[in-house]
Amino acid sequence: MAIREEWINYVHELQDRICSSLEEIDGKAGFSEDIWQRPEGGGGRSRVIAEGDVFEKAGVNTSVVFGDVTAAMREQLKMDGSQWFACGLSLVIHPRNPFVPTVHCNYRMFELFNAEQKLLDRWFGGGADLTPYYLREEDASHFHGVYKKACDEFDPSFYQRFKVDCDNYFVNRHRNGERRGIGGIFYDYQRPSEEQDIRFWMGFSKKCGNAFLPSYIPIVKKRKDEQYGEDQRRWQEIRRGRYVEFNLVYDRGTIFGLKTNGRTESILMSLPPTARFEYNYQPAEGSAEDQLQHVCLHPREWV
Amino acid sequence: MAIREEWINYVHELQDRICSSLEEIDGKAGFSEDIWQRPEGGGGRSRVIAEGDVFEKAGVNTSVVFGDVTAAMREQLKMDGSQWFACGLSLVIHPRNPFVPTVHCNYRMFELFNAEQKLLDRWFGGGADLTPYYLREEDASHFHGVYKKACDEFDPSFYQRFKVDCDNYFVNRHRNGERRGIGGIFYDYQRPSEEQDIRFWMGFSKKCGNAFLPSYIPIVKKRKDEQYGEDQRRWQEIRRGRYVEFNLVYDRGTIFGLKTNGRTESILMSLPPTARFEYNYQPAEGSAEDQLQHVCLHPREWV
Repeated sequence: MAIREEWINYVHELQDRICSSLEEIDGKAGFSEDIWQRPEGGGGRSRVIAEGDVFEKAGVNTSVVFGDVTAAMREQLKMDGSQWFACGLSLVIHPRNPFVPTVHCNYRMFELFNAEQKLLDRWFGGGADLTPYYLREEDASHFHGVYKKACDEFDPSFYQRFKVDCDNYFVNRHRNGERRGIGGIFYDYQRPSEEQDIRFWMGFSKKCGNAFLPSYIPIVKKRKDEQYGEDQRRWQEIRRGRYVEFNLVYDRGTIFGLKTNGRTESILMSLPPTARFEYNYQPAEGSAEDQLQHVCLHPREWV
Repeated sequence: MAIREEWINYVHELQDRICSSLEEIDGKAGFSEDIWQRPEGGGGRSRVIAEGDVFEKAGVNTSVVFGDVTAAMREQLKMDGSQWFACGLSLVIHPRNPFVPTVHCNYRMFELFNAEQKLLDRWFGGGADLTPYYLREEDASHFHGVYKKACDEFDPSFYQRFKVDCDNYFVNRHRNGERRGIGGIFYDYQRPSEEQDIRFWMGFSKKCGNAFLPSYIPIVKKRKDEQYGEDQRRWQEIRRGRYVEFNLVYDRGTIFGLKTNGRTESILMSLPPTARFEYNYQPAEGSAEDQLQHVCLHPREWV
């Protein structure tokens, strides 16, 4: 099968698989689906849960989009070429219980063509990262461990490289370098080389995409019924505020989408259902909240 | 008195006056003050109310800062010169009751110097804008009316010009051009000309600064005890989400501050205490919420 067709099929199949699994765990909420068209070419399938028992807000989106390379893309993405094509899956899950971490993952393929429709360039990118509100070391180790295992099947150097890239990407630089969470993996612009053809990178992206459910679902099952109170909820909302700050100030995909007439509702489904912004908030020294903040300021090894 | 000294004195006196007045209305909360130093030169006086009876979060900040013109300033602000100096007041007030609007105002003077400390350029900028959650036409007319009166004393063309500039500045372009609120006035880079010397613009800025209390306090007094329920509160939090989107994605001062090592807590005091981000939320057609959204999408004349 052609690369493009195979990847599109995979992305849609993964979306189905993830949504079924999340619905089963939630018990109450089902995904509602919006099929949207992009006037300039292509469209997407956005699926969202609102106000579930387990998932307060969850979005699992796929898109298959294409168009002309615009001046904005040339400038902001440093892209050559005449036409582009992109297909990917992007999800963000905001659970209700503050002991269940928020999670994000995104896998995408990008192609560039010249005016004669000849393929000029093609790459894969993606990753997954975990944003806990309370640090549970075994959860962090489990999450990272699943992705390390996926990476190791392809190259023993990948996990360490992509783990560091992830730590260096999800950074609120205006918060003394505080990370959004405890990381995961992040890779981009992975092109064919002498050793690794494009099927290698598609295979790697599929392997990582398939790792999502085993990386996250066991954590949800373990934590979703832990007792919590108003104080934990308040802390969750403060940390969700930091999530908003990162996504709106730094996230390349979000800013590029908003400034180039992307589908706003699908882009901003990543924002948490609620957030809190308190002036000069500092958790009490040595508290569980302080411990979480410390690990966001000083990334650690987890496996 | 020298321009700079006179403006610094004014800004501090205005801060005191506004804080006293807000404390008196709130009854419960008092401002807490943080005096901060900027390592590169100068500092500020941040005053914040948290969890008041009337004001859920309010910040009234002044700063007197200076330093070298950096590469970032040259690029992002297109600034020439070797040293800069800035002094201003900035306030954002987020009331608890959804029938009391959020308000923002900011007045500032900027100076540029060459390497020999010779003044190269000097300008004033500022404005005030109102962000209601429910449209009360008489409140909108009152707010705009106070600023029109202030403007008219200086030039009969100012109000209309600065009103339109305000409508065109506070725009969430990714939301079909929806404005943050119902506007006010906005002006920037006001320099001496043949007709108007720098004292004209300082006088104008003082006049507008003095207009803040009469523009806003009567609205607070009228609305602060109106009954509201969960539904109004939820809508307030959704609109506060739009406030966050504007401030973090578009606001020049916020982005510049965050990316140039400004004092994060003072910059982000503008964010609302809480916010809500719902996927694809649309108010019921013809509802009070819809009416507010409509007027944000289609700015009107108020006086």
